[in-house]
Amino acid sequence: MTRLEQQVKFLVEIDKVKNIFRQTYLADSSRKENDAEHSWHLAIAAFLLKEHMKEEVDLLKVIIMVLIHDLVEIDAGDTYAYDEEGKKTQADREKKAADRIYGLLPEEQGKMLYDLWLEFEAQKTPEAKFARVMDNLQPMMLNAATDGKAWVEHGVHLAQIMKRNEHTAEYSETLMEYAREMFIQPNLDNGHIIEDEKK
Amino acid sequence: MTRLEQQVKFLVEIDKVKNIFRQTYLADSSRKENDAEHSWHLAIAAFLLKEHMKEEVDLLKVIIMVLIHDLVEIDAGDTYAYDEEGKKTQADREKKAADRIYGLLPEEQGKMLYDLWLEFEAQKTPEAKFARVMDNLQPMMLNAATDGKAWVEHGVHLAQIMKRNEHTAEYSETLMEYAREMFIQPNLDNGHIIEDEKK
Repeated sequence: MTRLEQQVKFLVEIDKVKNIFRQTYLADSSRKENDAEHSWHLAIAAFLLKEHMKEEVDLLKVIIMVLIHDLVEIDAGDTYAYDEEGKKTQADREKKAADRIYGLLPEEQGKMLYDLWLEFEAQKTPEAKFARVMDNLQPMMLNAATDGKAWVEHGVHLAQIMKRNEHTAEYSETLMEYAREMFIQPNLDNGHIIEDEKK
Repeated sequence: MTRLEQQVKFLVEIDKVKNIFRQTYLADSSRKENDAEHSWHLAIAAFLLKEHMKEEVDLLKVIIMVLIHDLVEIDAGDTYAYDEEGKKTQADREKKAADRIYGLLPEEQGKMLYDLWLEFEAQKTPEAKFARVMDNLQPMMLNAATDGKAWVEHGVHLAQIMKRNEHTAEYSETLMEYAREMFIQPNLDNGHIIEDEKK
């Protein structure tokens, strides 16, 4: 196969993420969002919100990272943020998926994207931290826009949201404060996020 | 409104492109593709296929350009590539849409994206040419994957495809040759693209 044939094969294969649905609803509540739409949204959010991050980032790297971060779900499926059972096998399933999917590309391109995905997962570099903040913020934004629809469906507790965002404030106080005030608090007030009992 | 409030307002507004459907089907033929998915696909294609372009490009610029190139369709709707009636009013409708949608952002960010969209439309810079090649190639790729489904539905003629791609070979001989051989020719052979009579 020529390089171009390999590249096109990969591009046709990843079309499948358009049918991998997440638990988050679109802002108009009409249906759940798929991975391709989610990734597109994160990329534009990264472009616009870079100024709110503490650390400088290579924006192109962040954008490619968010565009490809969910491709492993073609084989591994979407694991909901608060699915503790699913998360136990998630790493194994996703590793196998990455081997197959990135293996379709010319070797150095496949390795570059595979490494970017590993970097995203490891959450050590400024780019991976930024990508993760976007990946946490965007569903909160859609949840808030839909009056907490997915939070209500899954009976989500505040503690779960705070656990998922345990590093968000460290990467960007501005964004975490905004999320807390504009996305989370109104849904605590109306009971769409379950507030844990004070001990 | 703070900058961040404006940015979030814009991000929620553009969620609407996830419900703007194009004429192209997904590779598995299950349904038509929407603008967010299409834009996501173009961005990854741009990252992978850059090597096949004649001119050097600023990849980050191309990627932002393709990610936002269809936002005007939130107000203006999708105008099918071969809808000659719709195309007469397209520029006007899209200009008004751009004013409103990019006007939601902090001024300099709105202007940057508006200018990128104008640059895409004008097709003069290497980045705009590359973005256009991706925008033409990706639906051909999906049409080929679906055995020409959208081409058959719309009774598309070869001359229409060649008109739309009149500059593609000039920007990338490699990609145009590939498209001609792998996407177009099989659909001429099976009659899913109408071959115009030789004069």
